[in-house]
Amino acid sequence: MQNTRILLNQRPLGTPSSDCWKLDISEIPELQDGQVLLKTKYLSIDPAMRGWMNEGKSYIKPVAIGEVMRALGVAEIIASKNDKFAVGDYVSASVGVQEYAVSDGWDFVKVDPNVFPLPAYLGTLGMSGLTAYFGILDTGQPKAGETVVVSGAAGAVGSVVGQIAKIKGCKVVGIAGGKEKCDYVVNELGFDACIDYKAGNLRKDLKEACPAGVDVYFDNVGGEILDTVLTLINKKARIVICGAISQYNATKLEGPKNYLSLLVNRARMEGIVVFDNAARYGEAAKEMAGWILEGKLNANFHVEKGGVRVFPEVLSKLFAGENTGKMVLEISE
Amino acid sequence: MQNTRILLNQRPLGTPSSDCWKLDISEIPELQDGQVLLKTKYLSIDPAMRGWMNEGKSYIKPVAIGEVMRALGVAEIIASKNDKFAVGDYVSASVGVQEYAVSDGWDFVKVDPNVFPLPAYLGTLGMSGLTAYFGILDTGQPKAGETVVVSGAAGAVGSVVGQIAKIKGCKVVGIAGGKEKCDYVVNELGFDACIDYKAGNLRKDLKEACPAGVDVYFDNVGGEILDTVLTLINKKARIVICGAISQYNATKLEGPKNYLSLLVNRARMEGIVVFDNAARYGEAAKEMAGWILEGKLNANFHVEKGGVRVFPEVLSKLFAGENTGKMVLEISE
Repeated sequence: MQNTRILLNQRPLGTPSSDCWKLDISEIPELQDGQVLLKTKYLSIDPAMRGWMNEGKSYIKPVAIGEVMRALGVAEIIASKNDKFAVGDYVSASVGVQEYAVSDGWDFVKVDPNVFPLPAYLGTLGMSGLTAYFGILDTGQPKAGETVVVSGAAGAVGSVVGQIAKIKGCKVVGIAGGKEKCDYVVNELGFDACIDYKAGNLRKDLKEACPAGVDVYFDNVGGEILDTVLTLINKKARIVICGAISQYNATKLEGPKNYLSLLVNRARMEGIVVFDNAARYGEAAKEMAGWILEGKLNANFHVEKGGVRVFPEVLSKLFAGENTGKMVLEISE
Repeated sequence: MQNTRILLNQRPLGTPSSDCWKLDISEIPELQDGQVLLKTKYLSIDPAMRGWMNEGKSYIKPVAIGEVMRALGVAEIIASKNDKFAVGDYVSASVGVQEYAVSDGWDFVKVDPNVFPLPAYLGTLGMSGLTAYFGILDTGQPKAGETVVVSGAAGAVGSVVGQIAKIKGCKVVGIAGGKEKCDYVVNELGFDACIDYKAGNLRKDLKEACPAGVDVYFDNVGGEILDTVLTLINKKARIVICGAISQYNATKLEGPKNYLSLLVNRARMEGIVVFDNAARYGEAAKEMAGWILEGKLNANFHVEKGGVRVFPEVLSKLFAGENTGKMVLEISE
């Protein structure tokens, strides 16, 4: 049986070009004892993928040249030589950008398509949601009545961060690109306000939306938006550095030139990586599943179609900000 | 009786020029009930002074144009209409850049010239030392065996930070400008190593001096040094932002372009202002005085002479890094 895969062909400088990818069609190897064969249903399309393409020390090993591009996904087990996993089970796992994957199941988390739609297990109930949960609660430490600002508010992580902060009784202001996304963030996700940074009045608009200043800022974007929020933080503010999508394709990095606002305000800026909380994934996913079922948390996602072959274009769409909610790529129905 | 004073004449753009200052000689007003007359002995010369000259929101009110330049100092009480303070008492207080000051004593801390030399009450036992104490212990949270890096290692705050970290059992590496200062930091202050950033191999030298990476970085300087240390931090590192002397006179601010190292390493960058710990100044000063008397803490200072009139030049020397240890200006013997 043949497997269509996307390999990393070369490392990008700046925005990944088509030269970075290589389409590969190869035979699936025979299963060994302990292995299962997965058929990929959906892939999680993440800003972090850009980092995985780079060389050098990071929180996870870079994808090697010639290797299948790393991707999380949900998949169905279609053959098994492992007692712990049966044909017909659905799991989320690091499957890679390919139609089929062979695995020993080391990182499998079983999921149930009858409880939530499969993409939700990659978004709100997957790494994006877990990142939001631990980042806002443990590092942001929002208190009821405080003002929480979230960038990338319509995105996979930001959309969950803001909803959790609302559940905790905060005033929540999102930042997103374009009126449509902002309307979505307020009307569908229940944020108190959402500022369209593309409208060109970010500082003024944000100041008006946060008359009591900013206590917690959850940053997914970096760049000018981070710099602007730094001018509006309160004493003892917490800035959670979750990502910096504006910088991932930049060839010249910009630092937050207003970082001395941390000094003036005795404020904190702290980076997070979800993996550190692995021991608590279960309790977090359970709490969030409860919130979804109670209607307090909108497990929004955005499905792209076209299978493995369109992965490069779909990743570009993510960086162009074309999604509202978690972006997933459907690999098979 | 006449009082020679230095007034803020205009706000600087970049490095303060002589136009920023105005020498003023005026009569000392008669004491009202509750007031005392101070004769200034030494003034504390601080990087923070540059910030006090700027307009705009900060952790303390800007000095107004036409007002005496703000300065901490130690002074002798030479006349008193306040029952709490007697002639002959010595106090540390915000006296301003002037030979005499009239005060109601609201911020006085009594000091004893027979226990420690007066400049020590402005340095190790004053705001610089307290800044070091709370910054490294509460925010840096160094654990025995960890590697602590301190910039401005020969300066008023850095010199104390490193010595406290040594007392706590850490490996301590300083960063300072020039071989003479580095020798001083190692030989007189007992740091394990000190890197001369002017030698031009900062990253390489620092990497060699910190083979186990950097767990705590106490930053007094900002700019390229902060950016370089960011590339060497360990997981869960703590960066204490105490100051950024490289930036205070800059007209174009530079942000730490490697700040995403905070994300990769789940590290924290936090600003501090000593005033937040006012309730604990007494206990901290007492502990540090004990360390000085036990010979564990070198209360180093650097005395400039020439009185009030040379204040502008002495402040320039501070920014040129001409001091080792706390810089003070002698006003009267």
